[in-house]
Amino acid sequence: MFKFQLIKKDAKTGARRGRILTSRGTIETPVFMPVGTQATVKSILPEELVDIGAEIILANTFHLYLRPGDDVIRNLGGLHKFMHWDRPILTDSGGFQVFSLSDLNRIMEDGVEFKSPVDGSPHFFTPEKVIQIQRNLGSDIIMPLDECPPPEASRSYAENSAELTLRWLERCVKEFKESAEQSEQALFGIAQGGFFPDLRDMSAKRTIEYNLPGYSIGGLSVGEDKRKTRDMLEISCSILPEDRPRYLMGVGTPEDFIMAVERGVDMFDCVLPTRNARNGTLLTNEGTIRIRNAEYRNDPNPVSETCGCYTCRNYSRAYLRHLYYAKEILSSHLNTIHNLYFMCDFMRGLRRAIEEDRFREFAISQYENSVTGRILTSLPKHPEIGGQSL
Amino acid sequence: MFKFQLIKKDAKTGARRGRILTSRGTIETPVFMPVGTQATVKSILPEELVDIGAEIILANTFHLYLRPGDDVIRNLGGLHKFMHWDRPILTDSGGFQVFSLSDLNRIMEDGVEFKSPVDGSPHFFTPEKVIQIQRNLGSDIIMPLDECPPPEASRSYAENSAELTLRWLERCVKEFKESAEQSEQALFGIAQGGFFPDLRDMSAKRTIEYNLPGYSIGGLSVGEDKRKTRDMLEISCSILPEDRPRYLMGVGTPEDFIMAVERGVDMFDCVLPTRNARNGTLLTNEGTIRIRNAEYRNDPNPVSETCGCYTCRNYSRAYLRHLYYAKEILSSHLNTIHNLYFMCDFMRGLRRAIEEDRFREFAISQYENSVTGRILTSLPKHPEIGGQSL
Repeated sequence: MFKFQLIKKDAKTGARRGRILTSRGTIETPVFMPVGTQATVKSILPEELVDIGAEIILANTFHLYLRPGDDVIRNLGGLHKFMHWDRPILTDSGGFQVFSLSDLNRIMEDGVEFKSPVDGSPHFFTPEKVIQIQRNLGSDIIMPLDECPPPEASRSYAENSAELTLRWLERCVKEFKESAEQSEQALFGIAQGGFFPDLRDMSAKRTIEYNLPGYSIGGLSVGEDKRKTRDMLEISCSILPEDRPRYLMGVGTPEDFIMAVERGVDMFDCVLPTRNARNGTLLTNEGTIRIRNAEYRNDPNPVSETCGCYTCRNYSRAYLRHLYYAKEILSSHLNTIHNLYFMCDFMRGLRRAIEEDRFREFAISQYENSVTGRILTSLPKHPEIGGQSL
Repeated sequence: MFKFQLIKKDAKTGARRGRILTSRGTIETPVFMPVGTQATVKSILPEELVDIGAEIILANTFHLYLRPGDDVIRNLGGLHKFMHWDRPILTDSGGFQVFSLSDLNRIMEDGVEFKSPVDGSPHFFTPEKVIQIQRNLGSDIIMPLDECPPPEASRSYAENSAELTLRWLERCVKEFKESAEQSEQALFGIAQGGFFPDLRDMSAKRTIEYNLPGYSIGGLSVGEDKRKTRDMLEISCSILPEDRPRYLMGVGTPEDFIMAVERGVDMFDCVLPTRNARNGTLLTNEGTIRIRNAEYRNDPNPVSETCGCYTCRNYSRAYLRHLYYAKEILSSHLNTIHNLYFMCDFMRGLRRAIEEDRFREFAISQYENSVTGRILTSLPKHPEIGGQSL
């Protein structure tokens, strides 16, 4: 089972409040998905993710294929059982990681050849192979193999890449249909097109021809200017059908969420909150806190007075600073609980704002409080958010 | 408040079942105390320690004095509040760490000079100072400054050391009494004496003259032959009063617990279960498991079928092996939960055995299953444990 319900549309922007129904549970959208690359969301327990309010997590095909192996996970009853998480899981196709994590990779019509960063062994991903791997993992939402062109790619490179991704999608859909009896997974399409408006348009239009249950937007937030992200996203979203969830891959910050939700995006994932946590960088409504700073040495206050997470309810900034310097594992643990709670709570607030016709006000208040907001006020005004530019 | 109740004595050995009452809770003895050196039992949460059944934990004066500083902890309301643990805490005096962790240290009549292993800064511990530090920490059971002679120490070194420890104890008791209004802490004495029977005898006799609420046995398990440990322990225990708890510092393994409980010891601490956990070495009734071994790659079973811990209830050996190789923080976390549960559960079994007049049978069954037991059967027979030598 995979169903998307559009609950409410914002009157003034493209923002939408939705719900994805799967056999493993309901996902309220817009949603932030914590990243559990190696079959664990780094530093915390599944039960803690439930407490935080996470309704779906991400896992990475590339990593799990290499270690422990998708065959191992299949033999142990699938990814959910393996990692003790019974809510939905989304897996990427591994394509992005082949290009970003493997030094040696060679793209061919048939697929992509690469060396394992774990042990240097040679591997080959085809569109069919990544579907088979994700069948073995048993994730709820799966992705087709795609190529994500680098931000500096030429027009001809981006065009060839977008066409290759479409040919690979066709093969993925075929493989997916032929193995359909195996599970209740949902295969998304991925709209690419680099930073060329006509290619973005073409890629989205030809991707939706496959009539898939959801669509991802790929190749954005890879180092480009934020205005480019926004413009490309706008094109993709204008074509993707209203009645399917839209997933902006690998993005990002609360500011990014607002910008993208405003354009109709429903799903997000990003490693930043978990990675920042391990580096002692904590997110709050009042700004970012670097817990190593001397000012917190004797600070009896929680990370944030307004936060309801386990860490803020029970520990002081002084204790978190101590754990950070003492290199204690508990430092990463408590910081991760806080940052993920912050992200999920931000999304709860955003969803409520859409429900209550306050999305524009919510967006403005967030931008006014943010560093990005202050920078962006010097850019040309964006008409959709009352006077605030994005 | 600090009271020791002797609930039951084993008819055939020196084993005893007791209870320590403190204002922060009751401690059933014999007890294993998980070590939380830097104000956190490495890798796990306080709530998980409660689930495991830990009734008291240890923290280290030396580490907390250096970082974050006992003044910081006092200003934040004491160690319990700082680390979110409201059950009893025992702190050591820091003496052992000065000698084992600081490269440069110089023992004088007045105290011991040392350099911080954190930043190289010079420090000086006196008997009065370590009491003041522990007053600031607010731990429930505190230790006097002592010197722990190395295992190869000569008789004259060990004698001078034992005498110095006694003179330091006198000063600790004086300082403790003068600051008595500050809290409800209990100061223990520490019986030393190296590996010389007459010095062990002398040290214990003169330590108990201070009529303290409990006594530690120090300087054992520092690398010596197990028979020496046993013989020295026997001398100390024969002198320490029956109506006070006896704490064998820094020991050790389940076999050590049995050997020492048999001689009347009530309290134990050791870093092994937590350190082993982080190295992927797991303790079970069926023997030690090295989770990195290839045989566990596809193993769907829990670490131990007979274990009731969170880890064994929810995760397979294959998953724990994966986490270990993937260098995930969750590896240390789940392994630590298991190993500490194992230790606390072992102690629960041991306490029940004493209650039910089965201590000898319990001890024999444990030895028969253990590697140490098999080794020790070749040693001269020990009369107290039916045919099994220790």
